[in-house]
Amino acid sequence: MARFFMAGTNILGGMAIMKGRDADHVRVLRLRPGEDMIICDGKGTDYKCRLVKADKEQVEAEVIEVVKCPAEPTVKVSVLCGLPKGDKTDYIIQKCVEAGAEEIMFFQSGRCVAKPQNMEKKLERWQRISEEAAKQSGRGIIPQVSWAGDFAGALDVAVKKELGIFLYEAGEREALSQVLDSSKDVKSIALLTGPEGGFEEFETKLAKIAGLHICSMGERILRCETAPVVALTAAMYATGNLA
Amino acid sequence: MARFFMAGTNILGGMAIMKGRDADHVRVLRLRPGEDMIICDGKGTDYKCRLVKADKEQVEAEVIEVVKCPAEPTVKVSVLCGLPKGDKTDYIIQKCVEAGAEEIMFFQSGRCVAKPQNMEKKLERWQRISEEAAKQSGRGIIPQVSWAGDFAGALDVAVKKELGIFLYEAGEREALSQVLDSSKDVKSIALLTGPEGGFEEFETKLAKIAGLHICSMGERILRCETAPVVALTAAMYATGNLA
Repeated sequence: MARFFMAGTNILGGMAIMKGRDADHVRVLRLRPGEDMIICDGKGTDYKCRLVKADKEQVEAEVIEVVKCPAEPTVKVSVLCGLPKGDKTDYIIQKCVEAGAEEIMFFQSGRCVAKPQNMEKKLERWQRISEEAAKQSGRGIIPQVSWAGDFAGALDVAVKKELGIFLYEAGEREALSQVLDSSKDVKSIALLTGPEGGFEEFETKLAKIAGLHICSMGERILRCETAPVVALTAAMYATGNLA
Repeated sequence: MARFFMAGTNILGGMAIMKGRDADHVRVLRLRPGEDMIICDGKGTDYKCRLVKADKEQVEAEVIEVVKCPAEPTVKVSVLCGLPKGDKTDYIIQKCVEAGAEEIMFFQSGRCVAKPQNMEKKLERWQRISEEAAKQSGRGIIPQVSWAGDFAGALDVAVKKELGIFLYEAGEREALSQVLDSSKDVKSIALLTGPEGGFEEFETKLAKIAGLHICSMGERILRCETAPVVALTAAMYATGNLA
């Protein structure tokens, strides 16, 4: 079923009035009066609507049911990634939105090769990728994509979550599964993954001092754009949000 | 540490003699005598070697340790995907090799838009992608990429595994987590995912009759190139291979 977020929509007295880009989209999809679509408020609520009229000015639809969006996980996972090169950011955003992330943040760390340039433009583009993926996967929110600044900024975000997990590929670590399985009921998780070159040892020490769990995902070395998706999937699985 | 598969290597009396493409690669990496590298036999065994000599003809290295490759999971997961369009195949191969697949197979199903053309060339290219990803992620095997033929061919592969899972996005399904959690000790799993348009209803019926578990991964709709990676990660997590 066609799915929209409410940016261009007003709901008034049981009717949804849609203008602008989304209304154009309804016309492009050639939806006809009597056909159903979902308009989501971006806060986890779906308005199931039946199209009444779509003309050049606006789209009108009758609200026939209001439900909690079933696709939203019970746990809010913030995915924080060391800024990778090129379009790996896009891939991370798209896949993490599909897999159920609450938000995606990038940050600068010691071994980042990519430079945070033109961030305003990039953040705009990243947010559009998130919106597209959210629509396509049936999400009830549009996960926010943002810039956490430097490594300390990322840590600051992570320590505010109930469970903070720092994925690292060497040294003394806890098993990710053990940490997740003993925290099945947490409501917020932060997952930190590094850029192409991984984290510096001192960054790992800092993360540990800050109270994050330094975790292993096994002996296979995951690319920097794969690790966040795998870690997020594990978190969804462990908290019962993958079924 | 530099990592090679044994295609161009002979191990004789405690010495590894490497020729051809891999020997060229050693020279490109400018490895010097005394430096260590791993030569993997592609069957799960790693030969840790110390470089003795690298000249134009061949590379010679002393075998200093023989160990079981630590990156190989304890469960062999066959990932079977309805043939998707474009380079989504490449993405599926790369990510599933990183995530621990034993093999990746594509098949033709009712809603496949992509056509299986030039398969010989494609399989060659896919196998190279698998090899690259296997090296990069430290795998002990190069997962085979192959063509399963039609839907019946894919089912035929799946039913021979201890646990066969068919991922489907609608109707009556078991929770993936429930099926996996009650089969923690299986040694072989098949995961079937559909092409862009998903599976036909009759294909789902066939899969059920064939004895596969029809499973849900929750209410978020995953792209056809995301679903195999997420399902594989769940299988690795559930069987203790993600830590």
